[in-house]
Amino acid sequence: MSPLELTRFLLDRIRGLNPSINAYITVSEELAIQAAKQAERELCIRGQAKSRQDRGPLHGIPISLKDNIYTKGIRTTAGSKVLEHFVPRRDAPLVTALQRAGAVILGKTNMHEFAYGATTENPHFGTTRNPWDTQRIAGGSSGGSAAALAAGLCYGSIGTDTGGSIRIPASCCGVVGLKPGTGRVTAEDVVALAPTMDVVGPLARGVQDAALLLQVITATPPRWRAPGGHDALAARLSTSQRRKVCLGVPKEFFLDVLDPEVRAAFEAALRLLRNQGARLQNLSLPLSTETENARNSIAWVEATQYHQHSGWFPQRAADYSDEVYKRLELGAKVTALEYLQAQTVRENFKQQLIEAFAANGLHALVVPTTPIPAPLIGQATVAIQGHDYPTRALLLRLNHAANLAGVPAITVPCGLTKMGLPIGLQFISLWDKEASLLQVAHGFEQQYRLPAYPQLQSPDEN
Amino acid sequence: MSPLELTRFLLDRIRGLNPSINAYITVSEELAIQAAKQAERELCIRGQAKSRQDRGPLHGIPISLKDNIYTKGIRTTAGSKVLEHFVPRRDAPLVTALQRAGAVILGKTNMHEFAYGATTENPHFGTTRNPWDTQRIAGGSSGGSAAALAAGLCYGSIGTDTGGSIRIPASCCGVVGLKPGTGRVTAEDVVALAPTMDVVGPLARGVQDAALLLQVITATPPRWRAPGGHDALAARLSTSQRRKVCLGVPKEFFLDVLDPEVRAAFEAALRLLRNQGARLQNLSLPLSTETENARNSIAWVEATQYHQHSGWFPQRAADYSDEVYKRLELGAKVTALEYLQAQTVRENFKQQLIEAFAANGLHALVVPTTPIPAPLIGQATVAIQGHDYPTRALLLRLNHAANLAGVPAITVPCGLTKMGLPIGLQFISLWDKEASLLQVAHGFEQQYRLPAYPQLQSPDEN
Repeated sequence: MSPLELTRFLLDRIRGLNPSINAYITVSEELAIQAAKQAERELCIRGQAKSRQDRGPLHGIPISLKDNIYTKGIRTTAGSKVLEHFVPRRDAPLVTALQRAGAVILGKTNMHEFAYGATTENPHFGTTRNPWDTQRIAGGSSGGSAAALAAGLCYGSIGTDTGGSIRIPASCCGVVGLKPGTGRVTAEDVVALAPTMDVVGPLARGVQDAALLLQVITATPPRWRAPGGHDALAARLSTSQRRKVCLGVPKEFFLDVLDPEVRAAFEAALRLLRNQGARLQNLSLPLSTETENARNSIAWVEATQYHQHSGWFPQRAADYSDEVYKRLELGAKVTALEYLQAQTVRENFKQQLIEAFAANGLHALVVPTTPIPAPLIGQATVAIQGHDYPTRALLLRLNHAANLAGVPAITVPCGLTKMGLPIGLQFISLWDKEASLLQVAHGFEQQYRLPAYPQLQSPDEN
Repeated sequence: MSPLELTRFLLDRIRGLNPSINAYITVSEELAIQAAKQAERELCIRGQAKSRQDRGPLHGIPISLKDNIYTKGIRTTAGSKVLEHFVPRRDAPLVTALQRAGAVILGKTNMHEFAYGATTENPHFGTTRNPWDTQRIAGGSSGGSAAALAAGLCYGSIGTDTGGSIRIPASCCGVVGLKPGTGRVTAEDVVALAPTMDVVGPLARGVQDAALLLQVITATPPRWRAPGGHDALAARLSTSQRRKVCLGVPKEFFLDVLDPEVRAAFEAALRLLRNQGARLQNLSLPLSTETENARNSIAWVEATQYHQHSGWFPQRAADYSDEVYKRLELGAKVTALEYLQAQTVRENFKQQLIEAFAANGLHALVVPTTPIPAPLIGQATVAIQGHDYPTRALLLRLNHAANLAGVPAITVPCGLTKMGLPIGLQFISLWDKEASLLQVAHGFEQQYRLPAYPQLQSPDEN
């Protein structure tokens, strides 16, 4: 299919399916067609070969962007009423980079209001529904991006992650979500949540696609390509790594509270990794409610500061959902001592993580992404072995570590529950081990692929 | 006089005068005699010239240290009951540097409890009295250092300054006080007040002595020596500065609230500077209660954090004065938003100061050091033209700017009130203009010297 055919196919599909999934807030059909036509001209499929200009593997590929990323001429709501009519005058630099690589932007995906939540139950633009079961949430805050991928409404997407907002929806929707290390991708002209923790990253259907997207939006491309690529370092890595891949399995915290089906899938994943030749190393990491609280304190304070500086909080109180407004109020109550203490916890945790990697010769940690599969829309608590836990806290629980430390992490599908809901497997690494992280995740993906994506039908096909 | 004679002379004088001035908490007589003897041996005054080892201009010179600086084997109370019996096992690096330069340490000077106040009215070790009028405070928190210099109980001293703690007592006692730029002198093994604002610096009877002390305690010596020295850069400066020295005189804030005698002395100082050939440039600087509050918020929070981490606050509540304990409680109440806002104010002020220097081609600002001469012991408010102001706020008022921006500042005497109390003149510069700062202060000092130091008599001489 040509870029234009591909784009038209997806726009049709979005027209048919988006009403039931609600993955997109805005579909920029006209601009998408225009970009697809340009890609087609450049690739010169109908023209002369000598004028052909190939912009690389993303050239002509239709993708989506989370609606907190500035797009020139396309409204950028951040999932909020406050920015309901905000049309940026410029593209975020990462959007320009994607366009230079020839990507076709289909539109802007739904998200939790201001990215401040993990469910994408959006009171202003509607809840994004999980393509695997439309009674369930897609996770969040980049829920629209993950749902669009799972529903086949784009071939890649860019989201943001402050406490799991890329990995949680990717895990819930059975796609790949890559949270790069802090600062790896410019967050310029992206509506912030908590500036020192926010990170922009790709969601895709496979690790290689995620790596391709990351390559375009970073100044320094990832030092890994899937085998078959010809990246010098990747070649060096695969030969030098006759040494076994060594993966850390934290004994505490990550495995304390898990849905039995998630636990079984995780254990099966460990067996697969071991069979692949990985060495699994049990270890302890100092994660606890103290580290959870530290991440929360920092994120709450920074979010409130950002909304205050933007002149929205408390002035636009009426335009916020109660849920988000209350969270902003929480941020105003954190004391400076608590905030500085949280920063100390953050620095200590970083150090301890670095030491754990060094002491065990680790390439990555391997843990579940969320302790539960996608819960029902509106479900306030989820029971695990007789105990009720708040849904939001469960979704965030296993993701906060990578945000607190600012290290890269990726989630890949590792199973389906009996009810047919995807389960995610998370690898966490260090800043300088992004190549290992991608390699390990890709290796796992070669062993385990979801049997199929959900079969969705447009209402008019019924 | 030989080092030993000099040291013995000062120890005798301390024995006689310290009971009425209370400048020293601890006199380390034995160690001082020992150091003086070693200095004497090295200078070989009675020995053979060929074994002579000259450690430079501080060799054999008796000095004092504020009692928050770690001294091996000499108790270091920080003016507190909490550390009443604390005897460090090591010297602070700056002390080692002074000893290597041959300085003789006479003892540890009195200070405001934990350096957290501007009056050196110390409930645990007694109030330091101003040698010019013993019914008056010496200022603080480095009150003992300034009083010891004014009373002739040492030839130099090292203090610390977080909100004026070197400059206020220097001004009150008619000596020179130099607050270097933040980070210029290591604060390792110095009991902290507010770590990001604390700075260690010298007090002395003249600018050149202060520069000599600074030279010893910094890794990078100041790029200035008094004329007659042979520093290449000083030479270059004095020739290249055929261009007039340009001094900024802020129109607002610094001159808003001034005792009439301080105002008159300041105006006389400006005339002297103009007669010396300086160009005076009126300008505006964004100083206000906002910048005062910003400095306070940051200092309060950091002080409370430090005392909390040290395990003193709130556990040792009974060992604090009410005054200091209440200030620590204030620090616990500052919100994270207020703290981050204060950091923003700080960054903006720094930028505006840098821009004001660039726009006007300034070498330094010239302002008063304190709006009032030394108040009476126990005086809670001071009246200026019919209005009562809290003493502490007045003393800090004109000093906070240099702490907020972290830039170097120096105070030199510029007059005496009718009652015979010293008045200070403050020069404030930028980090890279320390040489200009010292040069300008030294130039002024050549024009104005206090007519005499107070004549003090030991009780037994009466």
